[in-house]
Amino acid sequence: MATDDYNYEFFNVTFPVEWVAHVEINRPEKMNAFKEVMWLNISSIFKRLSHDPAVRAVILTGAGDRAFTAGLDVQAASEGILSDKPDGVDGARKANGIRRHIVEFQDCITNIEKCEKPVIAVLHGISFGLALDMSLACDIRLSTSDTRFSVKEVDIGLAADIGTLSRLPRAVGNQSWVKEVALSARIFGSEEALRVGLVSGVYKDKKEAVAEGLKLASLIASKSPVAVLGTKEILNYSRDKTIADGLNYTAIWNAAMLQTQDVKDAMLSGLQRRTPKFAKL
Amino acid sequence: MATDDYNYEFFNVTFPVEWVAHVEINRPEKMNAFKEVMWLNISSIFKRLSHDPAVRAVILTGAGDRAFTAGLDVQAASEGILSDKPDGVDGARKANGIRRHIVEFQDCITNIEKCEKPVIAVLHGISFGLALDMSLACDIRLSTSDTRFSVKEVDIGLAADIGTLSRLPRAVGNQSWVKEVALSARIFGSEEALRVGLVSGVYKDKKEAVAEGLKLASLIASKSPVAVLGTKEILNYSRDKTIADGLNYTAIWNAAMLQTQDVKDAMLSGLQRRTPKFAKL
Amino acid sequence: MATDDYNYEFFNVTFPVEWVAHVEINRPEKMNAFKEVMWLNISSIFKRLSHDPAVRAVILTGAGDRAFTAGLDVQAASEGILSDKPDGVDGARKANGIRRHIVEFQDCITNIEKCEKPVIAVLHGISFGLALDMSLACDIRLSTSDTRFSVKEVDIGLAADIGTLSRLPRAVGNQSWVKEVALSARIFGSEEALRVGLVSGVYKDKKEAVAEGLKLASLIASKSPVAVLGTKEILNYSRDKTIADGLNYTAIWNAAMLQTQDVKDAMLSGLQRRTPKFAKL
Amino acid sequence: MATDDYNYEFFNVTFPVEWVAHVEINRPEKMNAFKEVMWLNISSIFKRLSHDPAVRAVILTGAGDRAFTAGLDVQAASEGILSDKPDGVDGARKANGIRRHIVEFQDCITNIEKCEKPVIAVLHGISFGLALDMSLACDIRLSTSDTRFSVKEVDIGLAADIGTLSRLPRAVGNQSWVKEVALSARIFGSEEALRVGLVSGVYKDKKEAVAEGLKLASLIASKSPVAVLGTKEILNYSRDKTIADGLNYTAIWNAAMLQTQDVKDAMLSGLQRRTPKFAKL
Amino acid sequence: MATDDYNYEFFNVTFPVEWVAHVEINRPEKMNAFKEVMWLNISSIFKRLSHDPAVRAVILTGAGDRAFTAGLDVQAASEGILSDKPDGVDGARKANGIRRHIVEFQDCITNIEKCEKPVIAVLHGISFGLALDMSLACDIRLSTSDTRFSVKEVDIGLAADIGTLSRLPRAVGNQSWVKEVALSARIFGSEEALRVGLVSGVYKDKKEAVAEGLKLASLIASKSPVAVLGTKEILNYSRDKTIADGLNYTAIWNAAMLQTQDVKDAMLSGLQRRTPKFAKL
Amino acid sequence: MATDDYNYEFFNVTFPVEWVAHVEINRPEKMNAFKEVMWLNISSIFKRLSHDPAVRAVILTGAGDRAFTAGLDVQAASEGILSDKPDGVDGARKANGIRRHIVEFQDCITNIEKCEKPVIAVLHGISFGLALDMSLACDIRLSTSDTRFSVKEVDIGLAADIGTLSRLPRAVGNQSWVKEVALSARIFGSEEALRVGLVSGVYKDKKEAVAEGLKLASLIASKSPVAVLGTKEILNYSRDKTIADGLNYTAIWNAAMLQTQDVKDAMLSGLQRRTPKFAKL
Repeated sequence: MATDDYNYEFFNVTFPVEWVAHVEINRPEKMNAFKEVMWLNISSIFKRLSHDPAVRAVILTGAGDRAFTAGLDVQAASEGILSDKPDGVDGARKANGIRRHIVEFQDCITNIEKCEKPVIAVLHGISFGLALDMSLACDIRLSTSDTRFSVKEVDIGLAADIGTLSRLPRAVGNQSWVKEVALSARIFGSEEALRVGLVSGVYKDKKEAVAEGLKLASLIASKSPVAVLGTKEILNYSRDKTIADGLNYTAIWNAAMLQTQDVKDAMLSGLQRRTPKFAKL
Repeated sequence: MATDDYNYEFFNVTFPVEWVAHVEINRPEKMNAFKEVMWLNISSIFKRLSHDPAVRAVILTGAGDRAFTAGLDVQAASEGILSDKPDGVDGARKANGIRRHIVEFQDCITNIEKCEKPVIAVLHGISFGLALDMSLACDIRLSTSDTRFSVKEVDIGLAADIGTLSRLPRAVGNQSWVKEVALSARIFGSEEALRVGLVSGVYKDKKEAVAEGLKLASLIASKSPVAVLGTKEILNYSRDKTIADGLNYTAIWNAAMLQTQDVKDAMLSGLQRRTPKFAKL
Repeated sequence: MATDDYNYEFFNVTFPVEWVAHVEINRPEKMNAFKEVMWLNISSIFKRLSHDPAVRAVILTGAGDRAFTAGLDVQAASEGILSDKPDGVDGARKANGIRRHIVEFQDCITNIEKCEKPVIAVLHGISFGLALDMSLACDIRLSTSDTRFSVKEVDIGLAADIGTLSRLPRAVGNQSWVKEVALSARIFGSEEALRVGLVSGVYKDKKEAVAEGLKLASLIASKSPVAVLGTKEILNYSRDKTIADGLNYTAIWNAAMLQTQDVKDAMLSGLQRRTPKFAKL
Repeated sequence: MATDDYNYEFFNVTFPVEWVAHVEINRPEKMNAFKEVMWLNISSIFKRLSHDPAVRAVILTGAGDRAFTAGLDVQAASEGILSDKPDGVDGARKANGIRRHIVEFQDCITNIEKCEKPVIAVLHGISFGLALDMSLACDIRLSTSDTRFSVKEVDIGLAADIGTLSRLPRAVGNQSWVKEVALSARIFGSEEALRVGLVSGVYKDKKEAVAEGLKLASLIASKSPVAVLGTKEILNYSRDKTIADGLNYTAIWNAAMLQTQDVKDAMLSGLQRRTPKFAKL
Repeated sequence: MATDDYNYEFFNVTFPVEWVAHVEINRPEKMNAFKEVMWLNISSIFKRLSHDPAVRAVILTGAGDRAFTAGLDVQAASEGILSDKPDGVDGARKANGIRRHIVEFQDCITNIEKCEKPVIAVLHGISFGLALDMSLACDIRLSTSDTRFSVKEVDIGLAADIGTLSRLPRAVGNQSWVKEVALSARIFGSEEALRVGLVSGVYKDKKEAVAEGLKLASLIASKSPVAVLGTKEILNYSRDKTIADGLNYTAIWNAAMLQTQDVKDAMLSGLQRRTPKFAKL
Repeated sequence: MATDDYNYEFFNVTFPVEWVAHVEINRPEKMNAFKEVMWLNISSIFKRLSHDPAVRAVILTGAGDRAFTAGLDVQAASEGILSDKPDGVDGARKANGIRRHIVEFQDCITNIEKCEKPVIAVLHGISFGLALDMSLACDIRLSTSDTRFSVKEVDIGLAADIGTLSRLPRAVGNQSWVKEVALSARIFGSEEALRVGLVSGVYKDKKEAVAEGLKLASLIASKSPVAVLGTKEILNYSRDKTIADGLNYTAIWNAAMLQTQDVKDAMLSGLQRRTPKFAKL
């Protein structure tokens, strides 16, 4: 069983099923809105999960009934980077400060994507702004019938900068729709999200969606961790490379990774109709 | 209000709503088929709209009931580049002439894509060949229930060369379908276009579709022009770069663009439940 | 008519319609599972079809009622690359052997993609593992109501390495779904495949699907072979390049390819409402 | 002979030898420093030369003894983009104005690179700032023993933005030196420029260097214009693509361009030991 | 003056001149060979220097007379990653452990490259293996007449994996030489390093080289920190992007960074022939 | 010892030293000019050497005193692709024939680059046209004091299409020189080739150069074949990828390749001051 010392003020990290971690954003009284400590925490959590041998799949949810997350805690943010700087700091120096800040924030969210283990986001209720930045850094997105999505950033006068605008066009297959929702900030629901390919499953309510997310996580966790690691890594690599580069990378990846006991274990278990047990990764 | 001196023989440029330009292809007696002067004009129009401070969103439509555009005016074209060249010009020299011509034509259409302001294409009726090249250079595509689309070029013995073959595979999420319609030139309708993600909205008839297009343009035009500019630019940049490059570009973009009054105006307006007024861009 | 000397033990190559080749995987007693000779053969077949002037379109199907292909013949494979190596061969040397083997296998399947003529895969029944690697190297994918797809590889302890993980994310527009089916190896049907864009047509049964595939192949084969060649080539080129690169490549491609008699023949035939006859390519 | 109507206030365009154009920056009283009209002019000149059938090679020089060019006319510039903007324009809006301005300026200089005919820059005397941006957009760089080069921009508080920082690292083979001169703005001479590969020839004085430049231009102009065009284009294409992409582009380029009479003319002239005459391009 | 609390067991960090940091590798009794704590430390040092407003340029040297660094402490390393793993860990799992380890090590060295301030490496004596990985992540390389370089890794049975093989081909302009020294591990001297472009300056001995490195660092530190930051960043960006991408990135970078007081200060100081004082970055 | 059955009419393949193959172009009576069978042969030879466990390094030379190779056998070629095609074949169809032919020829030469073992070209005497295409696909280039190089293709009316224009700009660090020699076809000698970085060593005469080439080949062949393979592969990969991609590829490559006995053997041999013996690859 995984260690229980993942203690963070705004996140619950539990291990409801063998090999599966459940990360819950836990600031329901503020609709799970993010302040700086939270993105530092989520980065730290996913770096640990990435190398934790007791973890093979992760689900990410939001506490409470109302929201996966309402996005950035604008009040907290407005006291920070967006506030007026003291006199004497020119536009270039301000710009460099902002750039450092954005890059740090982006790096935190990208650590979800870099996690070696598959991450399933289960969205419900209000899922605005950062909800998309974060869930697009996850591998799989599920939602509930009541989820209300919005690429909210233009409504506060800025272009989304924590990843949505880079990842959304590659995640779904309707660029007209991507532009429409990103430029208008309009709210859309799960049916639309499913149709355009933003989510791959919609469930009745949060309880059912989380249960289905856990089931899927358990299913993935039952597979060879070597095979799962390679599948995630190669899909991410291939996403923005040429086909030729993707094939080449796959060949050298598997040159190492086919030297695993898991292939034999998986084949033998298949023949013997029993569940294989794979060594830790 | 925008200036009214956008006078072109084959295009009507009007400003039906504050901040919104309406570009209408106006050669209905020829089903809005394009001859050379028209692509030079459309290039010129969109270069001006791009920097016109009175414009924040654009819709592009075709005049008349029958067609958005039937594509290239083949009769006119056949007198030009495709005609027999005089004796003594060898294949290489012909090839260079053709190349110059195609590049010039492509550059004209790409100026729609480069326009700093979002462009919404509303297609209706016959929408063949160049209709796709052009609308794929727009940000958002809407259509009517009677729109008849076709990647028509193979039917006249050539591969589409003004952008469809480069932009279509990135615009929709069904590559089997892309190959099928591009290789067969078969006509398809709006329902199919919506299902595969070529358009993001289908409306009953042209009147309704144009009205919805204008409504969407107005909605986008009501947002911060700084935020809208960045959102379009970063989405276009990210479309064919790696995620890492997209994030990096976003960071330096916003380093400049977060130094805007619009963020404060947008936030304050949100709190005060009133419509923000943003300065010209 | 095409030559009849395409003789291969595990493939039937016929020419049911003028200009159309039909390649049938023919090992139905093993559910068309692939062993090494078969991927060498399929490579050889598509290299020949690519330059065969009597062929303008190809369909690829599987013999028998049960399967397009069940994938790699695991039993045969397990005697090969995945078996224990003799003592004294270290991990690096094993890795290089595996790499050579994978690259060779990939190159064989990539020859389907490189075939100058469009290739339509018609899948039915069991379509596991290599069924996806191969059909994703085809241009168009059709299936039957009973097709059962699976990215099966994680179930035998490995990441798919013959192309699925590189080509699938570019073929469909729902990356959450791509990750879900690739990480879980779950079986899915044609309705789902159609919805996410993996196939562009689903038919009642194999008979009807093959008939429709042949009809589509015939339609494509009736077009200018110069136009069809360019359309396939430019779409493949543009898939993983920037828009600017795609446009540039298109311009130089058509600089050569517009010097064809087919444009005039196609136009004239259009005016005279008769079917054009195009010279061999 | 080429037409003589290339009339520009600050540029002399002459045709000293058949097929060769000589573009001279002509503002010697200001050490050929550039103001806005000049970069618009140079853009226009090279766009015309690119398609002028009477031109097969170009040399670019500066009038007067003292300077190829001292760079941007800082005094003129300081009245423009760098000056204080009126109150009420925020940092983001200023940024967009600057961006538009830089892109326009870059596009002008890039038209030298896009010119279909090879361009030889002959630098002498003061060659600061824009002298490098411009000459790096040329194909070949020659200089005189008294040339004094400097990537001068950091000395006026900015990073060079008209091309030096993008083109210099690809033009020379000593990245330590590139960083050193770009970060320190130190002045260096022709011997050093030759050693690191910035120029490919150094001559005693301006007279000799211009004569050698013309000789080289004449030599190039005596070759097949089809071969020269392809060589420049493919070298530029290959510079920032993969080897595989470069080879592929070369193949389709020559598929068109080998259909030239020039190959036969060149071969036959070789056998007959006479100078070939090639048709206009 | 910069803070003095940069305390690390194996590194001396001093501030010999205003705005200039001097990082000295300090394990001379082991010829400055690196063990794990050292690359973690160097990463931490350069992350701090990157944001330290009192620092505008950095030089990196090795303590003692004999070596910049002899490279990896092979003895220490051999107890770590290269040692035999306990029974039961298969090749795939070993591979993943090695990959994690290499990536972590690479990331440490890449933090030198990511440092916002220019870094000048001064090499002397033995400069093997990691000496090249590290100095290639620096901006400028100087050396002494007695420096002995070697891409040493093939001599211990492995391909260099901390950056030399990725950065060396882009740093110098003689790929035949790159392959020769990387494949043979032969030792070469400063004269050769200068000729091929690996270093941009060679000095008599360490004392003189360090003095010259400090002088160059001081010169760079006297320039506008905004201009220096942009110059380093854009050169690094352009190194492995297309020219078009480099120009585009430059435009948006300077859109922010031209809004600096430094341009005015630099210009005014120039006119008044005094040294400008720039605000902290 | 390597097998002796490498029998080809126009190539001598010998094994003068353990682990080293010597490929000699053997058509001295025609100055080693290439006709079609020869490039098919050279492709076949290098594919075999690539996997031949008895070979660890290769040198490529030309027979006779006069030439490495005078390039393409123009007389033979002129009877082939460049000859007039029969009536009725239009420009597009001719273009596709040419394209197929060029791609096939390019693929043959690229097989030298793809050879897993390092290849050292030793050029002497006439080294025109294809001499550069071929030697640029080798890893290391040496020459003699009498070598006369020329990118000869423009002199016969075409742009070099077998690789020179794609590989030369990446092989040397003086792009002005690259353009100059490629556009003018002028002949240059070894001193110049060494200065710009085209070759990395120049020797008195052919005898000495071949001896030095063999010595270098022997030195490389004495190293771990695992380390040498990885060094060549990663350098080639990194050549046209970003630094970040290069580092990532290196990590997964070495994840497999560090699991070699060679590291221990190399280290132990170093300590014991004896020559290591490495197992076959």
